[in-house]
Amino acid sequence: MSYATLREWFERVGHLGHAQAMLSWDEAVVMPPGGGAARAESLAELARIKHERVSDARVGDWIAAVRTEAELDPWQRANVDEIERTWLRARALPEDLVAASSRASTLCEQAWRTARPRNDWDAIAAPLGEVLTLARERAGCLGEALGQAPYDALLDGYEPGMSRQVIDPVFARLKETLPALVDAAVAKQRDPVPLPGPFEERRQAELAETLMRRLGFDFERGRLDTSHHPFCGGRPDDVRITTRYSTADPLESLFAVLHETGHALYEQGLPPEWRGQPVGGSGGMALHESQSLFLERQVCRGGAFLRFAAPVMRDAFGGDPGDPAWSVDNLTRMAARVQPGRIRVEADEVTYPLHIALRYEIEQALVAGEMRVEDVPEAWTARMRSYLGIDTSGDYRDGPMQDVHWFAGLVGYFPTYTLGALTAAQLFSAAARDLPDLDDAIARGDFGGLREWLRERVHSWGRLRGTQEILRAATGAELGVDAFLAHLERRYLG
Amino acid sequence: MSYATLREWFERVGHLGHAQAMLSWDEAVVMPPGGGAARAESLAELARIKHERVSDARVGDWIAAVRTEAELDPWQRANVDEIERTWLRARALPEDLVAASSRASTLCEQAWRTARPRNDWDAIAAPLGEVLTLARERAGCLGEALGQAPYDALLDGYEPGMSRQVIDPVFARLKETLPALVDAAVAKQRDPVPLPGPFEERRQAELAETLMRRLGFDFERGRLDTSHHPFCGGRPDDVRITTRYSTADPLESLFAVLHETGHALYEQGLPPEWRGQPVGGSGGMALHESQSLFLERQVCRGGAFLRFAAPVMRDAFGGDPGDPAWSVDNLTRMAARVQPGRIRVEADEVTYPLHIALRYEIEQALVAGEMRVEDVPEAWTARMRSYLGIDTSGDYRDGPMQDVHWFAGLVGYFPTYTLGALTAAQLFSAAARDLPDLDDAIARGDFGGLREWLRERVHSWGRLRGTQEILRAATGAELGVDAFLAHLERRYLG
Repeated sequence: MSYATLREWFERVGHLGHAQAMLSWDEAVVMPPGGGAARAESLAELARIKHERVSDARVGDWIAAVRTEAELDPWQRANVDEIERTWLRARALPEDLVAASSRASTLCEQAWRTARPRNDWDAIAAPLGEVLTLARERAGCLGEALGQAPYDALLDGYEPGMSRQVIDPVFARLKETLPALVDAAVAKQRDPVPLPGPFEERRQAELAETLMRRLGFDFERGRLDTSHHPFCGGRPDDVRITTRYSTADPLESLFAVLHETGHALYEQGLPPEWRGQPVGGSGGMALHESQSLFLERQVCRGGAFLRFAAPVMRDAFGGDPGDPAWSVDNLTRMAARVQPGRIRVEADEVTYPLHIALRYEIEQALVAGEMRVEDVPEAWTARMRSYLGIDTSGDYRDGPMQDVHWFAGLVGYFPTYTLGALTAAQLFSAAARDLPDLDDAIARGDFGGLREWLRERVHSWGRLRGTQEILRAATGAELGVDAFLAHLERRYLG
Repeated sequence: MSYATLREWFERVGHLGHAQAMLSWDEAVVMPPGGGAARAESLAELARIKHERVSDARVGDWIAAVRTEAELDPWQRANVDEIERTWLRARALPEDLVAASSRASTLCEQAWRTARPRNDWDAIAAPLGEVLTLARERAGCLGEALGQAPYDALLDGYEPGMSRQVIDPVFARLKETLPALVDAAVAKQRDPVPLPGPFEERRQAELAETLMRRLGFDFERGRLDTSHHPFCGGRPDDVRITTRYSTADPLESLFAVLHETGHALYEQGLPPEWRGQPVGGSGGMALHESQSLFLERQVCRGGAFLRFAAPVMRDAFGGDPGDPAWSVDNLTRMAARVQPGRIRVEADEVTYPLHIALRYEIEQALVAGEMRVEDVPEAWTARMRSYLGIDTSGDYRDGPMQDVHWFAGLVGYFPTYTLGALTAAQLFSAAARDLPDLDDAIARGDFGGLREWLRERVHSWGRLRGTQEILRAATGAELGVDAFLAHLERRYLG
């Protein structure tokens, strides 16, 4: 009885989540600017109602009753655990803080969209300050209620159970190892021949859809659109991925699409019988990111995939089969090019963790109150120089304004990108062990076996198993740095 | 104090309305089919929460307190009246009935989209029966609570204060007058030369946007997209209009766009200081339809507009300036062509009210329980033969399945189309009286004066004035049939 009540209650919470997901997609992809103010209010209202429901005192009573009475199967038990986790986090946050955070984030993100192209840090500093103040308040409330350090409490919302204690040594090792690896890779690589452009957006979109379909994306249950910043949103039966196009460089957009397709396949592969329930959702963001990086970095930027994809890409743009720019070798050089640069989403996988280390350190300092918003540009410039040897002073657009995250209120999220990269490398190495024909299958454009492997080992578990448990079962070990570093050495120095 | 509480409460109700409007737009325009089931649940949940809020017992207390205490200005008083009206209607409906109606309508509309192209009445009869059963239940509850006949109670939800008592004599006169007028117009008109197609969708969309902009549509606060059935949705600062394209006939889509643009200008012209409050919304659907028909029928299908638009259209499709197909005379013949046909949205304005009479009679019988869903096709065929002299037997696709309304749960809505046509004719005749230069201005493509006239006389009143009050103030008379019949005689027999 109590279990059924809980299930129905959270099914209704899920309906609100559906509305939030779709309105957020709309806001980023189609909404005209004039709709922004009303959209912020509507999203804030939905956040408030959802929060009211999740934090309802009766939820605690139902959970307590279920624990004493009901005979539950493991999925149902995990569902109750997940509900309790959500409930405890929601109870920690006052309703007004939740609505204010939603509203401030939506407005700040809208302001960011116009301020970024103008390199206008001053225009965004105040709204960002507001968003960060609210994030610190949330961190404080959550930390106190859950007995966690404030930053850990935010992180735990994105990747359950993760903490600075686990992450700090990871970044220490990466910061120690990667700079030399970057230098070695740069020294070893040969320059690619540029692709003969320009490349029409429409053809890029068609190519993207062709490859998405081939990789298993179900267009009956999803879409591809254009937005300022590539993302994967929506819901498992209506997955919305986006990209942005550059007519000069078709690979930038294509790899963004393949990345988001990895996220999408995870969503579309979640257990359908648990649709709408907390336990049926995707796992932590590190695991989610592992799925996008598995597809983009481990599979699609590798030589086997490019053997399959090179002619498909060439034909999509009417390229000359004799043109060496379209050769597998040249495309592989492009796809695995290492080059320290300003922009995270354009970064190669060797320099990428250094971009994350920079953000991880700054956002920790912001949450701890050890850094003020106005000090962010200087901290950014200093770290870009130290970690990547690049001078970015005065560049806000492709400096601290390049990513939507902080402006959208996502603080404590960045480390999951690098945790995802480690997880992806570890999973791919296990897949290669389990599927001896893997490289040939990929080179033939046959992704069925790999998708099945991911579905069985990762997607179909929903939130029944945590990230570490999934890793242990699939790879025999918990999260580590070794598989990632071995992958980098093989691909870039091999 | 009570007024502020009421205002804030209904502002929050408005945020839910925003979410509903955008999710409905998404459902019709971009949602992949797999997202349909979850969307229906999400919309039903929003309908349920909104209904809970609107019908909250405290709303009645706040209204009572405001009535005794507060000193309100006329807008605030009208806002309270409108809130009371909404509250009384909501109180009449049980929450489960509201959620069930929303869910059944969303699912039935989705089923309609696949069944219609297949001419498959059997596939849609059961979901339609469910939707109609729920509409009858709503009509019964509302009628009992408000002391109205069941059909009037539904109608009143679309056009406040309207009733069969007003409408029946209107349709009686139209059914008596129009058949002879149709015959005379058909006998008098000359055949147009067909336009040299095919017409690329992209160019049609560009032309549509050009004309929308010229007519005053603000693209900072709205969009044009493609859907199965043209409509105007969204919110005043984010108006979403849609059309569908035929590559054979660019006028069909263009006039649909101009029609929806009339709706959109109304929404964009609503009083900004009352945004989000009930009194700041658009008036009844007859008034709304009068704005679309004012623009499409009174203005854009007339000779003056086509003097301006003919070269714009010709150039948009790269037409030959010497080609008589693109002459003003030929386009005017096309735009004012009278031809009894099966399809309401393609019907000329002379036969159009007969399509509405048919639907009005059938839906009345359905609500009264005098007709069953399975008898609709026969009733349809009989009336099509009698009113328009057309045999449509066996054609469901372009028969009773042609319009989305019933399948989407909109029962009691159809008569507002014809009431809107009468209102539009009456308003246009007053505008021509007030703006002596009107025809020349239109022929020059200068719509500023006309838009100002509409804004002052109609748009800026929100719901402060009802349709009849707006008509009296703008035209000197309440709703009548004379201006409409005079317009038809002038345009088609003049």
